[in-house]
Amino acid sequence: MPAAYEALARQQTQLYRLGHLSAICNWDQAANMPPKGNDARSAAMAELAQLMHQLSTDPKVDTLMQQALQESLNDDESANLREIHHQWRRQKALPERLVTQKEIAAGRCEHAWRSQRPANDWAGFLENFRPVVALAREEADRLSQSLGVSRYEALVDGFEPGLTEAEIEAVFGPLRQWLPGLIAQVIERQSSEPVIQPQGPFPLEAQRALCERVMHLLGFDFTAGRLDVSTHPFCGGVPEDVRLTTRFNAQEFLGSLYGTIHETGHGRYQQNLPAAWLGQPMAQARSMAFHESQSLFFEMQLGAHPGFVTQLSPLLIEAFGPQEAFEPENLQRLLTRVKRGYIRVDSDEVTYPAHILLRTKLERALIAGEIEAEDLPSLWDAELEALLGLRCDGEHHQGVMQDIHWPAGLFGYFPCYTLGAMYAAQWFATIEKARPTVHAEIERGQLEPTFDWLKTNIWQQGSRWTGAELAHRASGETLNPQYFKNHLNRRYYG
Amino acid sequence: MPAAYEALARQQTQLYRLGHLSAICNWDQAANMPPKGNDARSAAMAELAQLMHQLSTDPKVDTLMQQALQESLNDDESANLREIHHQWRRQKALPERLVTQKEIAAGRCEHAWRSQRPANDWAGFLENFRPVVALAREEADRLSQSLGVSRYEALVDGFEPGLTEAEIEAVFGPLRQWLPGLIAQVIERQSSEPVIQPQGPFPLEAQRALCERVMHLLGFDFTAGRLDVSTHPFCGGVPEDVRLTTRFNAQEFLGSLYGTIHETGHGRYQQNLPAAWLGQPMAQARSMAFHESQSLFFEMQLGAHPGFVTQLSPLLIEAFGPQEAFEPENLQRLLTRVKRGYIRVDSDEVTYPAHILLRTKLERALIAGEIEAEDLPSLWDAELEALLGLRCDGEHHQGVMQDIHWPAGLFGYFPCYTLGAMYAAQWFATIEKARPTVHAEIERGQLEPTFDWLKTNIWQQGSRWTGAELAHRASGETLNPQYFKNHLNRRYYG
Repeated sequence: MPAAYEALARQQTQLYRLGHLSAICNWDQAANMPPKGNDARSAAMAELAQLMHQLSTDPKVDTLMQQALQESLNDDESANLREIHHQWRRQKALPERLVTQKEIAAGRCEHAWRSQRPANDWAGFLENFRPVVALAREEADRLSQSLGVSRYEALVDGFEPGLTEAEIEAVFGPLRQWLPGLIAQVIERQSSEPVIQPQGPFPLEAQRALCERVMHLLGFDFTAGRLDVSTHPFCGGVPEDVRLTTRFNAQEFLGSLYGTIHETGHGRYQQNLPAAWLGQPMAQARSMAFHESQSLFFEMQLGAHPGFVTQLSPLLIEAFGPQEAFEPENLQRLLTRVKRGYIRVDSDEVTYPAHILLRTKLERALIAGEIEAEDLPSLWDAELEALLGLRCDGEHHQGVMQDIHWPAGLFGYFPCYTLGAMYAAQWFATIEKARPTVHAEIERGQLEPTFDWLKTNIWQQGSRWTGAELAHRASGETLNPQYFKNHLNRRYYG
Repeated sequence: MPAAYEALARQQTQLYRLGHLSAICNWDQAANMPPKGNDARSAAMAELAQLMHQLSTDPKVDTLMQQALQESLNDDESANLREIHHQWRRQKALPERLVTQKEIAAGRCEHAWRSQRPANDWAGFLENFRPVVALAREEADRLSQSLGVSRYEALVDGFEPGLTEAEIEAVFGPLRQWLPGLIAQVIERQSSEPVIQPQGPFPLEAQRALCERVMHLLGFDFTAGRLDVSTHPFCGGVPEDVRLTTRFNAQEFLGSLYGTIHETGHGRYQQNLPAAWLGQPMAQARSMAFHESQSLFFEMQLGAHPGFVTQLSPLLIEAFGPQEAFEPENLQRLLTRVKRGYIRVDSDEVTYPAHILLRTKLERALIAGEIEAEDLPSLWDAELEALLGLRCDGEHHQGVMQDIHWPAGLFGYFPCYTLGAMYAAQWFATIEKARPTVHAEIERGQLEPTFDWLKTNIWQQGSRWTGAELAHRASGETLNPQYFKNHLNRRYYG
């Protein structure tokens, strides 16, 4: 009987349950809460977060951890302890004073950013952003010393455990070489392909019904989750009760529909984590790149697959009445239209990685102390010009200030989006290799075999393996960016 | 600087914030949660409840309490400490083992009751109900010894602090004398008054819009609260963010509308508690009788006032189209129709107190150990026959098994409903005495002066005074049931 391990696992269950309440209240804050509820809610959430940090870093946990590492554990328990230990080391490295300072600085910066961004107030933003950077560097420094990795790696590790800068460079270096050329070729090629825009308005109730219908098709379990509306769509809630959100625009429905398909990928991952282990870190999704690999598999590999588009076409006609724009060939063109733009979240799958290359390069340098916050706009323009031929020229609201990540103190997350897109292509290639009939299946609306593969190989594995092990067990190799390149070439230039 | 008091107050703020998360998740469970979320939610709620009980009964609180009682405090602080001390004494009296046993027994009994009630399975119910009674008696016994009051008073004190059996008897004794006669007279009188029933269906969206419109008229602040749907309507959430629920029936709208008006009374009380003190027990609503006095003031004193009914009539026509039934005189008859029935929650304001007399008599005897659970059906029928001339004769689903309170282990709450109805009549009489124009104001839709009185005299007082003091400050006397009798006589027999 591994007593210390059991005690740690019991504490994890306690933290998981308390985290449940935090997750539901966080979703409620975005989806339901009236404005005057905000101060009390924020105070309540902070109170629980502090209590959970205290429980996690209680000195008695140190002793249990040392004992548990000596205990004889079975494979599952060992994997779980590896995850507990990883989270604990990260938490222990940060004094409570720093956690609180970070929360306050990021809270202030993010709150002001919400009005500074539309006002393009760079000077005002910089004032709040400098302390956020300083605290992120201190956090990176402490974690770096504790974990024995570089400062940027120490932050990335919070989202993608164990990922190194060398690994990022090995993937992003070549991508930077071939991506701008591919973008130019695709845009040139598409310029001779006419595309018909759908004509609104699209009634919101019809849009909602369409989204729910497509979620059903994609296997979302509505007895263990919901779809609601929030300003910034996300996948929240808990594995037992997944709360997806979207937003509707009466003049444009594809953004909401494909946003919903994206979140449904996150949602199915959460709904299909290993049920018997829920409450323990081993049952959590492997990492953010793996999470994004599911949402992007749903949105891009599957959602923009010509076979799926053929399935979708009659549903659009049913929802909104017939339009020429809903013909499968035109829909496919709409969904794969490539256009250089300033805004990451509005990008297509070909130009999106350019935004990630830019952010990854700048945040690495910022955390390493090679550049300062005030250097960002000029470096941003230099990168944007090299990658996409665009410059912001002082329009910071569509440049440095466009994303919530940095003002919220999140550094090291951005690479996960493109690593996720690459993993998604790798999963699809693996499925295709084993079952070349997959294209015909999708066109027939037969999606179960594909979901079964994801369920068996990714979802049900939780965090039993490291990311590299999980990729290898699923696809026979670790991350191989060639599959993503092949996917883009085939879809956009085939 | 009263250091011990300050430390206790800080802990109250912490508990209040944690309670916020519990309240929102509890509302979510009733209004949103898909079925598969239930087990994880229940476990999460129980985890937080246990943590809060541990924080409240930590031995260091004993020391702080002793010290704080010796400190020099201002009036507000003294009142707050009185409330903290009251809650703490109740919590301290109960060992954690008993709290857990009670939760398990009541959870099991209530869960089974949900299917046993429709099946009229008295034998099955009794099996789960006996341990609930045994544990309630143990709780009453421990609290009784600690607080120096009778066992039933010890339970009542959890809802109506300080209320004695003598006080209940002084009010309910005379009520029992005159109520059956009044009921008979009113029914006789109404038998010659024809009433037209509204004809459905009433579209749910129109019902929802009507409810929200009436809530606006009644001053509910939608920037600090919402209206949603749940199986059992309630007023939940937190003072900063009040979550009301209702349920709709396409064939009958008055039940939902007046249920919403009732909950709006609870909701306005919550929204108008003293803001500067929120987080401390002194800012809580005074007691459950005071809470019910607000919901019943809104539903009965105001909502069934002929002047209000005149205001309501055009809104109904606007919502559902014209009907003869929506004429003010007919509406008034619909809202004041008296009928002897089995079900408490379906009762009118004249027969309702009979149900409360019955339950109060039986639960007092049950907690005192004078009767056993298996004696309830026959005693129920004896009481019901004496009060309303009805017998259940084995139809337990509309007798002992009809309410959730007892299966959920709630004993001592029932008297609050009728005490609340009496207080509501007392408040209205006080307003009328000071401003005889109140009837004309209501008929003109001028409700602000009435709400201002409630806000100043009840809502904003929180728990600054004891119930008796609060009633006296508001109306010049403590609870005087004569006002309720006068109200019924005037409205039903005037």
